[in-house]
Amino acid sequence: MLVNRRKLRIEWGDCDPAGIVYFPRYFQHFDSATVALFEKATGLKKIDMAEKYEMAGIPMVNIRARFIIPSRYGDDVDIESQITEFRRSSFEVRHHLLRGKELAVECFETRVWTVRDEASPGGLKSAEIPDSVKRTFGKSTKAASRVSKKKKT
Amino acid sequence: MLVNRRKLRIEWGDCDPAGIVYFPRYFQHFDSATVALFEKATGLKKIDMAEKYEMAGIPMVNIRARFIIPSRYGDDVDIESQITEFRRSSFEVRHHLLRGKELAVECFETRVWTVRDEASPGGLKSAEIPDSVKRTFGKSTKAASRVSKKKKT
Amino acid sequence: MLVNRRKLRIEWGDCDPAGIVYFPRYFQHFDSATVALFEKATGLKKIDMAEKYEMAGIPMVNIRARFIIPSRYGDDVDIESQITEFRRSSFEVRHHLLRGKELAVECFETRVWTVRDEASPGGLKSAEIPDSVKRTFGKSTKAASRVSKKKKT
Amino acid sequence: MLVNRRKLRIEWGDCDPAGIVYFPRYFQHFDSATVALFEKATGLKKIDMAEKYEMAGIPMVNIRARFIIPSRYGDDVDIESQITEFRRSSFEVRHHLLRGKELAVECFETRVWTVRDEASPGGLKSAEIPDSVKRTFGKSTKAASRVSKKKKT
Repeated sequence: MLVNRRKLRIEWGDCDPAGIVYFPRYFQHFDSATVALFEKATGLKKIDMAEKYEMAGIPMVNIRARFIIPSRYGDDVDIESQITEFRRSSFEVRHHLLRGKELAVECFETRVWTVRDEASPGGLKSAEIPDSVKRTFGKSTKAASRVSKKKKT
Repeated sequence: MLVNRRKLRIEWGDCDPAGIVYFPRYFQHFDSATVALFEKATGLKKIDMAEKYEMAGIPMVNIRARFIIPSRYGDDVDIESQITEFRRSSFEVRHHLLRGKELAVECFETRVWTVRDEASPGGLKSAEIPDSVKRTFGKSTKAASRVSKKKKT
Repeated sequence: MLVNRRKLRIEWGDCDPAGIVYFPRYFQHFDSATVALFEKATGLKKIDMAEKYEMAGIPMVNIRARFIIPSRYGDDVDIESQITEFRRSSFEVRHHLLRGKELAVECFETRVWTVRDEASPGGLKSAEIPDSVKRTFGKSTKAASRVSKKKKT
Repeated sequence: MLVNRRKLRIEWGDCDPAGIVYFPRYFQHFDSATVALFEKATGLKKIDMAEKYEMAGIPMVNIRARFIIPSRYGDDVDIESQITEFRRSSFEVRHHLLRGKELAVECFETRVWTVRDEASPGGLKSAEIPDSVKRTFGKSTKAASRVSKKKKT
């Protein structure tokens, strides 16, 4: 199961008057981490995936996060990201933000693969995630995908 | 039970290349909505609450959100916010982002009341939420608080 | 000459560990103020201007700002915005951020009216600002525009 | 003269509905680049400089930027940063954002070294930049500093 790990320096501009990360900024970093995970798997940047598959984005439909240890500017942390389940048009991502070996933040995302909706100008609609995209994430993901198809979406 | 409702114009800078709100921006708006709710209840700005109660912030410990209908720049939406439970040092906030009468986003926050931790420079520690703060949110909140004290934190 | 004035509450999430506005956040507010100015003049939201005129955006080409008095979260300030010059495809905007009567920040923007560039996928190109847009900003702007056409772009 | 160069991936969340970088986001990246420049020179993170020198921040007093070539999400760019002048308590920073060899954005910052102002709670005041900080930026900066002292601040 493919895991992407990236380093992150917490910046002054990530932090609030209490001196710790302003929580919406974590989500920006997690969003970039999801994109990086797809790039690691597919070898394609998001913008190239968008063109190749006529994908319009992978918007969030559900998110949960738990903030366990605060971080301050200057802290160096790691984000570990993986897909935990592929369904037909939606998928689950899990991020662990680590300070050394300690789990500082965990985040669970449910996202959906979308394409332009020709019926509504500027609109998006969900679409089947291409198998060729799913395959790049490795065997265990395919297995998870097969099971989950029975369950939902 | 006190509810705060505020209008929000979705701005160009809230939106991403898909033309819809970039999700971390919702959390910034919900954070401001929580602050506005406290101001409505207590009559104090956050900065004045911070001074009066030596409060250092109300950081997030847990958050969940569901994104039901996307919004685009130029959309006018409403955010309805309320405290659903006060415990000793933590509390629950619920936000509904509405497009007209339709629920577009819902968000559940668990936050903790913190003060400066003298034992650790720059550090924060949780503290009991002042009763005089809780009282401003109205009767039903006090009842909820009484019950929840049996359960946790 | 049309001036738009809007109130702004400085939020916790606008501020940095020094407790004052993190300067990039001012630019987000100025950007929204420019959009609000166009809406006041034309009666159209940016998204509706985009559709009506096939405008793709009004990106910044040059910006200058001077930060005179810092602001803290909870501060209520005003932003006064006006177009100081229209040229063929570019224009000048000036923002004053006021704390009471005191000028706290001033900002000068040079922006360009753009449309989609069919020759380059995803690309933008500058285009003539529609006269019907310029006219909505009032007489003095039209005069300024006439003079400036001799000078540049 | 010390120059710091850092790579930057333009992220989805940096971009607006026109598909290009939302300009306030450049300033966040430039701010982090200034911090990185000080860290390269002094060997200290900003948070450690803050503690060692009782520095409260290096707020912006003046900024100018020119946006020459737009960038899109997925673009890999470089930021080159250097101090161009040290004065008693203020200093000049120049950033070049490069796409390959092409200058895409240039930015000129005037910042001031600040400490806590004991006379005003939460307030900041400018202070002399420690010589030991200036020295780490190399000879030519010291020369520039000597000249500029005659001129201002």
